[in-house]
Amino acid sequence: MSGWVTVAGLGPGSEALVTPEVTAALAEATDVVGYIPYVARVAPRDGLTLHPSDNRVELDRAGAALQMAAEGRRVVIVSSGDPGVFAMASALFEALEASPNHQATDIRILPGITAMLAAAARAGAPLGHDFCAINLSDNLKPFSEVERRLRHAARGGFAMAFYNPRSASRPHQFTRVLEILREECEPARLILFARAVSTPDERISTVTLEEATPEMADMRTVVIVGNEATRRVGTWVYTPRSVAP
Amino acid sequence: MSGWVTVAGLGPGSEALVTPEVTAALAEATDVVGYIPYVARVAPRDGLTLHPSDNRVELDRAGAALQMAAEGRRVVIVSSGDPGVFAMASALFEALEASPNHQATDIRILPGITAMLAAAARAGAPLGHDFCAINLSDNLKPFSEVERRLRHAARGGFAMAFYNPRSASRPHQFTRVLEILREECEPARLILFARAVSTPDERISTVTLEEATPEMADMRTVVIVGNEATRRVGTWVYTPRSVAP
Repeated sequence: MSGWVTVAGLGPGSEALVTPEVTAALAEATDVVGYIPYVARVAPRDGLTLHPSDNRVELDRAGAALQMAAEGRRVVIVSSGDPGVFAMASALFEALEASPNHQATDIRILPGITAMLAAAARAGAPLGHDFCAINLSDNLKPFSEVERRLRHAARGGFAMAFYNPRSASRPHQFTRVLEILREECEPARLILFARAVSTPDERISTVTLEEATPEMADMRTVVIVGNEATRRVGTWVYTPRSVAP
Repeated sequence: MSGWVTVAGLGPGSEALVTPEVTAALAEATDVVGYIPYVARVAPRDGLTLHPSDNRVELDRAGAALQMAAEGRRVVIVSSGDPGVFAMASALFEALEASPNHQATDIRILPGITAMLAAAARAGAPLGHDFCAINLSDNLKPFSEVERRLRHAARGGFAMAFYNPRSASRPHQFTRVLEILREECEPARLILFARAVSTPDERISTVTLEEATPEMADMRTVVIVGNEATRRVGTWVYTPRSVAP
């Protein structure tokens, strides 16, 4: 009886974006753990125990998964998007570091389609040149660090994707993010709000930085800011591959 | 007879990482166009014409796809990884911008697992905090732009993923990239070389910046540089989710 832990990325929402590798891991699992809405995406079946848990208990969840694997269970930790992008993979390794007796656990990380790539594809190709991904939440880092990264990203000419731009508990930070962007970028810079991509609630809009308002983002939105060359062609938004010398 | 163009991401190599959405698009296609090794990943069948083409003819290929769609063909442009990350989606929109008579073409972009996410998953979670993706090739931008972005990424505390780090035609630039990183980062910074991820040729190694040599990268390698908190736990490499205030 040899247990394992797999951290699997379910993609942004649509089943058509779940990789066969992830589907196969779920078919072999005895236990699925994860945040409530992600576990809800896994179909119940005989022999499979679902363990939904609340947000912000990532380390407890990872520790429980390691413990179940030690008992011979085959555990899939489900993440939305890609598990390595602001999701459960890092939490699992933090838990592993804190549990020396679990370090021989059979672990696999299975990549998934992360929200910024699904959003970019729906809009065109706004991340078609160098870009960065920034988690705007200050749950786990000071907001001064967010500000430092925003300024370097803008001054480096990167397109940017923002995860967790705004939540009920921190409604004002995204206002400040827009202010910082306005200090660093021209008013005509394109900014794209992609909500619930690939689900029935999908809503995507592109505006200029000048037109953007904080209310355009919520906790289900990924925000993409183009670089200075990002432009529209018809209904699409794309960033050219070249930079003039 | 209504034609279309779909740009589809095949992922890094393994069929287990191709999304069902991409598989379905290929099943409906009459024509597949793309760089020779990517078209070679599509199984021939009756009614499907394969159009492999050489590297560096992206705009010609995109223009040909738009023309075929206008003639009622169902065309899939295949990209490795994700089509929106240093791949064919931007080239298609460049071609569309240059062809006003094709702007009503039915276009879809289908995301895929890009190399950095597959590499990160194999290694652990090195992109578990804010990160950026930089194309090191200077085919389409001056090297001074690469240098500017490297320095901002390092000073902003981002982990970094490098695409196209080194090729036979530009063997010296990656040497210069390592020099710049050594000016900006501490010698113990972890750097990960992931070659041909998810294929039989896969080879992944993690060294410190001090130990890294240019020969560790080639054109099939994606390179990931951790941030200052990136560390090892057992055989894994991960970046913690938090930044201390």
